[in-house]
Amino acid sequence: MAMLINGQPGEQISALDRGLAYGDGIYRTMEIRAGQPRLWAWQYRRLVADARRLRLPLPDEALLLDEIGQLADGLEQGVAKIVLTRGVGARGYAMPADCKATRMVSVTAWAGYPPERARDGVHVRWCDTRLACQPLLAGIKHLNRLENVLARSEWSDPDIHEGLMLDTRGLLVEATMSNVYLVSGQQIITPKLDQNGVQGMLRDWLFVHARQLGYQLEEAEIIPARLLQAEQVFLSNSLIGLWPVASIDGQALPQQHACCARLQALLALQR
Amino acid sequence: MAMLINGQPGEQISALDRGLAYGDGIYRTMEIRAGQPRLWAWQYRRLVADARRLRLPLPDEALLLDEIGQLADGLEQGVAKIVLTRGVGARGYAMPADCKATRMVSVTAWAGYPPERARDGVHVRWCDTRLACQPLLAGIKHLNRLENVLARSEWSDPDIHEGLMLDTRGLLVEATMSNVYLVSGQQIITPKLDQNGVQGMLRDWLFVHARQLGYQLEEAEIIPARLLQAEQVFLSNSLIGLWPVASIDGQALPQQHACCARLQALLALQR
Repeated sequence: MAMLINGQPGEQISALDRGLAYGDGIYRTMEIRAGQPRLWAWQYRRLVADARRLRLPLPDEALLLDEIGQLADGLEQGVAKIVLTRGVGARGYAMPADCKATRMVSVTAWAGYPPERARDGVHVRWCDTRLACQPLLAGIKHLNRLENVLARSEWSDPDIHEGLMLDTRGLLVEATMSNVYLVSGQQIITPKLDQNGVQGMLRDWLFVHARQLGYQLEEAEIIPARLLQAEQVFLSNSLIGLWPVASIDGQALPQQHACCARLQALLALQR
Repeated sequence: MAMLINGQPGEQISALDRGLAYGDGIYRTMEIRAGQPRLWAWQYRRLVADARRLRLPLPDEALLLDEIGQLADGLEQGVAKIVLTRGVGARGYAMPADCKATRMVSVTAWAGYPPERARDGVHVRWCDTRLACQPLLAGIKHLNRLENVLARSEWSDPDIHEGLMLDTRGLLVEATMSNVYLVSGQQIITPKLDQNGVQGMLRDWLFVHARQLGYQLEEAEIIPARLLQAEQVFLSNSLIGLWPVASIDGQALPQQHACCARLQALLALQR
């Protein structure tokens, strides 16, 4: 792994950083292909949106791209992560008047997930951990991720690839690290993320590109029973791409639909 | 400020620490008097409870006390902070099987808040930021504190000393950095913290000691209107001690009750 912290090579940050003290920051994880971050425009758009909501200063796009490029130079396949925090602050929750943000950019070589997951589908489970409803933080990829940590700690079976999460109202939100979609005919629905959840950049991408293939993607309030009625369920995140769901808690799901495979093919064309 | 990280002098931690990545950890802040942490037994009891709930390994009590003692040696008055995280982990939410926790202990000289706040009372406001309902994290002093950061960012007027917070149901929970109590006769009520909020160690202390002065402290579901009906409202936290509330959003509160002053006097006798 190679890392730049505020542009300087290093792997350490101040123990007084608000990112550690309060989770006061945001992050993004992205695929590296041939030395470049994939789907960068979509990633940066999300960083802009999240930084604005938390009133975090956002570094220049060119600077971030340059730092990723430096670290990923010559790397065929890998993962980059950007973490932005509100920097070192005095004791107390108040945001520093003169905020010196901390910027961490790291790149790691990584060969990707086993390709059969995208082809044959993944096995998922329902998590008992439910997501709270907090409109002020909903959708943001912030550093307050204890709910996801607790949900992911519910299983250790390596043959279970993801865990679906409901919120405290009993509505489907997401999987621990991915967004969720239900296909019926030409319609795709995905949970509204106005109360909780993380808005992944591939979710944004799908809203624009599903239409190209004749699908209509819409947000909906989704109760768990609807998953078993769907013709196909699939997941998205920037590192997994799109994974069809083969089973939920051991119950096989129908794979009557080519939707996920068609979207995968379209996604594969993107840089 | 002086700091030990896993027992070694230093002020930097790995940028890969899960405390930063996910807020996967807990903390406590405490007063130092004459080189020793005040009310240590109460602080440690809370650390034990919080670590157990998040399945974090907890360092030995004697080790923590020794490290605080080293840093606070010769210091008449100050603040100590303990931060415990799940340490450095691989990418992903899953808890590392072989968790090497990170332990940060720091001590800073600090003369305390202006004493007139404890004597004459403080001016508080209602925050618009509401706390989500999440039983799995309720009461824990964990590192996911964005809600408090957002609430504290609602005001910058130095004459407003604290902000009261409701949850998404409209019930009183706490103030941004303190617990809240309403006095009526010999009865004191404080919000239940089964859905959200931070269980301060002074709150535990009050449950045991209010009784000594003939008060009955109980948890309750408290709607905002009840604050204006109380004979006294006061706040607790380990650094402020106990502060009576003089006004809420400019509306003066009655100070007909000696309750807070009597509890302050009892607290002053504690080591």
